[in-house]
Amino acid sequence: MIKTLEWQNDKVILLDQRKLPTEEVYETFTDYLTVCRAIETMVVRGAPAIGVAAAFGVALGALGLADKDPQKIQEKMATVCERLAQTRPTAVNLFWAIDRMKKVIEANKTAKIDNLQKALRAEALRIYNEDIETCRALGRHGASLFHDGMTILTHCNAGALATAGYGTALGCLYAAQEEGKQLKVYADETRPVLQGARLTAWELKKHGIPVTVIADNMAGILMQEGKIDAVIVGADRIAANGDTVNKIGTYPLAVLAKHHGVPFYVAAPMSTVDLTMPSAKEIPIEVRKSREVTHVGDVQITPDDVGIFNPAFDRTPFGLITAIITEKGICTAFPMG
Amino acid sequence: MIKTLEWQNDKVILLDQRKLPTEEVYETFTDYLTVCRAIETMVVRGAPAIGVAAAFGVALGALGLADKDPQKIQEKMATVCERLAQTRPTAVNLFWAIDRMKKVIEANKTAKIDNLQKALRAEALRIYNEDIETCRALGRHGASLFHDGMTILTHCNAGALATAGYGTALGCLYAAQEEGKQLKVYADETRPVLQGARLTAWELKKHGIPVTVIADNMAGILMQEGKIDAVIVGADRIAANGDTVNKIGTYPLAVLAKHHGVPFYVAAPMSTVDLTMPSAKEIPIEVRKSREVTHVGDVQITPDDVGIFNPAFDRTPFGLITAIITEKGICTAFPMG
Repeated sequence: MIKTLEWQNDKVILLDQRKLPTEEVYETFTDYLTVCRAIETMVVRGAPAIGVAAAFGVALGALGLADKDPQKIQEKMATVCERLAQTRPTAVNLFWAIDRMKKVIEANKTAKIDNLQKALRAEALRIYNEDIETCRALGRHGASLFHDGMTILTHCNAGALATAGYGTALGCLYAAQEEGKQLKVYADETRPVLQGARLTAWELKKHGIPVTVIADNMAGILMQEGKIDAVIVGADRIAANGDTVNKIGTYPLAVLAKHHGVPFYVAAPMSTVDLTMPSAKEIPIEVRKSREVTHVGDVQITPDDVGIFNPAFDRTPFGLITAIITEKGICTAFPMG
Repeated sequence: MIKTLEWQNDKVILLDQRKLPTEEVYETFTDYLTVCRAIETMVVRGAPAIGVAAAFGVALGALGLADKDPQKIQEKMATVCERLAQTRPTAVNLFWAIDRMKKVIEANKTAKIDNLQKALRAEALRIYNEDIETCRALGRHGASLFHDGMTILTHCNAGALATAGYGTALGCLYAAQEEGKQLKVYADETRPVLQGARLTAWELKKHGIPVTVIADNMAGILMQEGKIDAVIVGADRIAANGDTVNKIGTYPLAVLAKHHGVPFYVAAPMSTVDLTMPSAKEIPIEVRKSREVTHVGDVQITPDDVGIFNPAFDRTPFGLITAIITEKGICTAFPMG
């Protein structure tokens, strides 16, 4: 099993996803501020993994406190939670996980610091373990949509590396594989951060699923030539009406799939659903630094001083989505149960 | 004016487009075989520019001959033409230009070598000069479609760098600019070879047209947000029914444009139209080396030993194209005149 992130001896271990696929490096984190930087710089990424990392970050934040005054502890923990919530704006799992940790802080507002620390560590590990169980349940539901011999297109990375270790979109494919189904996968490279080329290809290869990487521009010709049986992607936030915000490039892929009558599936845990958002229009889209577009590694690919637009996500209306696969079952109409 | 390629003192000068935008390097070629390699490795690229480069290559091939026997000369020139025709399979301008040179060879089959050399040099320069005139005429027609204040999306590079020096798709924008219209351009970076990021951004900046580079995945969100007034691209080959083969990623862009009701224009000289092809289905699509996908410069972005699919072009049905802009006028229905 891929160890995307782990809690070990009151430290957080993260697989540095920026260095994949050429280097497999694990970094150790002992304070919440470096965890914040790791989320911001995409050492760890993927909506469910960001949620778990944030929970670990809150637990680390508590471990860093030596205060005895409950009022002081509450104030400091509020700062920890606030800082973690500022790391990335789009994936709702971040806020969901922090909210769960906040409830534990609230429930322990008169407790001694070591009891609070214990309670937060336990809740973070619960979030971690639930994520794996959730992905496995989601995968079992999703596997029913995939038959032996199918060729699947996926975008970005919604796999073990995007979660505590099994995956959402790719979890469905792993579950299908466990049922003995042979699948082939095309992975969009997913510019600008190349999660498909770097991460999805890496973990599918580890799982023994044949994978072919394409530039994002090549999904069209594959669908036109009838080579794609289904598309499956993850989600960073799902609105109350089923509209889905996911990695930039998801929306054009959904339009293409619709144009070709190819099923388009979204796989995400229920923690990705944000009922406070009536539609995707209200969900904020993170715009990231230009350098992700202007350079690949140290190679400069654009002239100096030209404009760059780098939104990290886009919005796919529910009307373009065939079904949303969750741990509770497969949903084809919103609102979900 | 950008000097994409030139004939100087019986040598061919090519701007090495692989090195843009960070280096502006001009290479000199004195024999047709190195011109073949330059076309294959995309030192020079873009359908019209490939045609001119091939014509220059045939002229260089003749200059390399010392034979006196007309039969021998004809045989050697056949080899030159054949080798040049093998460089790239999709852009029809290559074959069109070689065919024009072949007619000169045929018309001079009893001529002395120096007369043949002179005639081929003259024909190659005619093709070069015609390309510039053609692009200017095409640009004037195309400019009528663009109004002051419009924002245009383009893909790959169909500019000065893809032609003898003015451009097809970008030629329309330059002509509009010459008419005093202010345009803004979004340039798809155009993976895997990044002609948009490297070349289109470079030449639009030189022309003083504001340009913003996006990853190919970002065209969808821009159209969804109503930020694109029109799309314009070039073409590598246009079938008798108007179907257009162009840089990979053109087809999904056309599907997106249709979905959003955004006009989708193709700009190409008549030499790009291949009436022997009933539709795009019959047009061969070049599949290029994996390394274009697996690496950017020396940076490896995919794991070792995964599959790679790297088609250089795709097919856009005429039904998705609003109009084809040529030097003879704007065509909205096929067959063209």
